[in-house]
Amino acid sequence: IATGDEAQIQAAAATFNAADLAEFVEENPDNEEGVRLLRALTTEQSAKVFGYIGPNTQTLIAELLPTRDLAELVTAMPSDERADFFNLLDENRQHTLFQSLASKEREDLRRLASFEEGTAGALMSSEYAVISTGMSASAAINLLRNTAPDKETIYQAYVIDNQHKLVGAVSLRNLITAMPGTPVDDLIATGLVTASTETPQEEVARLISRYDLLALPILDQDERLVGIVTYDDAMDVAEEEATEDIHKGATVGKLETGLRDATPFSLYRSRVQWLVILVFANIFTGAGIAYFEDIISEHIALLFFMPLLVASAGNAGAQSATLMVRGMATGDVTVADWGKLLGKETLVASALGVTMAAAVMVVGFMRAGPDIAFVVAVTMIAVVMVGSLIGMLLPFLLDKLKFDPATASTPLITTIADVSGVLIYFSVATALLGLS
Amino acid sequence: IATGDEAQIQAAAATFNAADLAEFVEENPDNEEGVRLLRALTTEQSAKVFGYIGPNTQTLIAELLPTRDLAELVTAMPSDERADFFNLLDENRQHTLFQSLASKEREDLRRLASFEEGTAGALMSSEYAVISTGMSASAAINLLRNTAPDKETIYQAYVIDNQHKLVGAVSLRNLITAMPGTPVDDLIATGLVTASTETPQEEVARLISRYDLLALPILDQDERLVGIVTYDDAMDVAEEEATEDIHKGATVGKLETGLRDATPFSLYRSRVQWLVILVFANIFTGAGIAYFEDIISEHIALLFFMPLLVASAGNAGAQSATLMVRGMATGDVTVADWGKLLGKETLVASALGVTMAAAVMVVGFMRAGPDIAFVVAVTMIAVVMVGSLIGMLLPFLLDKLKFDPATASTPLITTIADVSGVLIYFSVATALLGLS
Repeated sequence: IATGDEAQIQAAAATFNAADLAEFVEENPDNEEGVRLLRALTTEQSAKVFGYIGPNTQTLIAELLPTRDLAELVTAMPSDERADFFNLLDENRQHTLFQSLASKEREDLRRLASFEEGTAGALMSSEYAVISTGMSASAAINLLRNTAPDKETIYQAYVIDNQHKLVGAVSLRNLITAMPGTPVDDLIATGLVTASTETPQEEVARLISRYDLLALPILDQDERLVGIVTYDDAMDVAEEEATEDIHKGATVGKLETGLRDATPFSLYRSRVQWLVILVFANIFTGAGIAYFEDIISEHIALLFFMPLLVASAGNAGAQSATLMVRGMATGDVTVADWGKLLGKETLVASALGVTMAAAVMVVGFMRAGPDIAFVVAVTMIAVVMVGSLIGMLLPFLLDKLKFDPATASTPLITTIADVSGVLIYFSVATALLGLS
Repeated sequence: IATGDEAQIQAAAATFNAADLAEFVEENPDNEEGVRLLRALTTEQSAKVFGYIGPNTQTLIAELLPTRDLAELVTAMPSDERADFFNLLDENRQHTLFQSLASKEREDLRRLASFEEGTAGALMSSEYAVISTGMSASAAINLLRNTAPDKETIYQAYVIDNQHKLVGAVSLRNLITAMPGTPVDDLIATGLVTASTETPQEEVARLISRYDLLALPILDQDERLVGIVTYDDAMDVAEEEATEDIHKGATVGKLETGLRDATPFSLYRSRVQWLVILVFANIFTGAGIAYFEDIISEHIALLFFMPLLVASAGNAGAQSATLMVRGMATGDVTVADWGKLLGKETLVASALGVTMAAAVMVVGFMRAGPDIAFVVAVTMIAVVMVGSLIGMLLPFLLDKLKFDPATASTPLITTIADVSGVLIYFSVATALLGLS
């Protein structure tokens, strides 16, 4: 492949998938070779491959390509990927590239690049297919045929009025199966699911998944059609959002790249904040233990059971919080459900508490005798219930206070459960064993 | 809507989305009303709505519908949804329903229902579009037009040989844009991405997302085309798998339904197992503390810092493990990357350890003087590094031993970090402070 014979590379590349070629380019530490591959491909092929390449490698390759080649490549990219790529470049490069583009692409780029990252506007493509009312089905198919090369999808065509407002949509499936003379007006589906340019991208993905859409039309403030988001972009967003939620669940902040490509510094930055916050939060647990130093020195055997009780509270709380945060993220549960869920959680938590108290009572009896075994069992029921209820309620509370419920991460819940666990344990011990 | 006027309900229903109607049926505690709605709709409409209804409500409604209506509904459902629904019924109902179906649907049902849950076979639909080599593009379009009503999608048509082996695929987009007389042979894409009936569903979703496919062809052991999985099913699977991974990360086992619909018993069962395992695992931490009782009683101030040190080890470990498990689930990192990642993790963990040691040293100095502050700072660096490395390596190790890497849940890592943290802390303390 490195010989540089264009025809040979093009033929070889045709048997590979664009996603696989992109991986080859990314995995190759020597970007020169990637550039050689991209330059050997036809412009359409290389634009497609380039779209699958991650942002880091895209930037590196852009620096190695002559501006004229880069402009050609960028022109052939779908408008949404083009805008994302453009936003990666520094101002100088943006300016040079901008000068070498045709005015149509410039206009489009300026518009798409202006939307905030993470919104439907930044995700959408402006290459949607449009047909007019009054056309026959066969005329509409003809129109789609002729405009197909520039469109992201022709499987959904949109009908707009003279103010560019969205009237409805017709699927190519319906156009094809209708009699050729049928007016498209008879085939239009109205009451479409739509989003606005400001809709957050996770909501866009949720709509596409919920309604099994091929593409979601995006409207501006004046209800005019300005773009579409297709299902394949929605799948990428859904994966990205799930990763972000999973990371948040363990107090890892936002990473711009995958773990493999992340720099040590970006990993450090994404992790350090919450670790330090939680160090200070844990001082309360230490203070709790210090407060009960007297009962501890008198019954030093109590210490043996502390980790197990405190951890159980945290683990049960982590389970509840995780169930709740994920349920809220997928739309399975809403804030309105909290009453019903509280009842269920109380029931489940008491059953769990009793089971675990039974398990721990045996150990307590063998290790420290009946008095401490009883203290440990009572504490276990209490801490599992308290931990579970905190885990369940905190996400709701955060949501009410306009925070992301996913902030109720497992380490945060564990820390809160630690403090509560220590206080409950030694209070129960003081009450039941007393100080001599 | 409850008046029962069929025409009125049909008209009203046409303005709603099937997914929304399904939600109406589900939210309505009185299933009679849902049944009335479904019966008032046309068979196609009600089959579509029924497909969006969750398994619990589906079963309840099936019991309220006369067998003949149910058979009609089931016949109109897409083959994959039909098979899933069929698997929900008890044997008696399955038998009765089976008798009332036409032989084509029976055959199809028998085949699809035989695949194991969670595989491509169980997910696929047998309603894919087929065209033959030798046809012209316009003849192929005509064929697709005529067979469209029975097909899951006509946007991808598959070409098979006389042994039913997959030769290639043609997109409707390419058929439409080609000159009408073009032979389909010139338009066929070969080297397709495919999966087998046994491929796990998460792998199917990953392929569809990675290659931006509309549909993935599924082959049997003899490489014959037996079905397709479409992108909308892949989106549902991806969400389901992300939920399962998130739950596993907090030791919550598999739930058949969402949190809102889960019974208290199913929640109890999904949570109790790991909670009890971890109770016993935490006995080791208790034993560790008991072992060091002497140094603790001599320097009781050490107890104050224990929660904070032990929790930091767990939190740092949870971060590493979560990053690693998710990276492996999305395919971002593979087992082969472990060497490179180990180096990066060591670097990041030492930077984190030093930062946190600095934070905690101040507190240590103020609370307990220079000696203990020094012990605490040294311990912090050590435990953050040990916790992070355990968190990073455990998922790899589990994968090597053929376990799911997601078993390296935050609570499990926290427990391991607790034991290590206690041992390291009091060993360092013994070494630096000594016993008098």
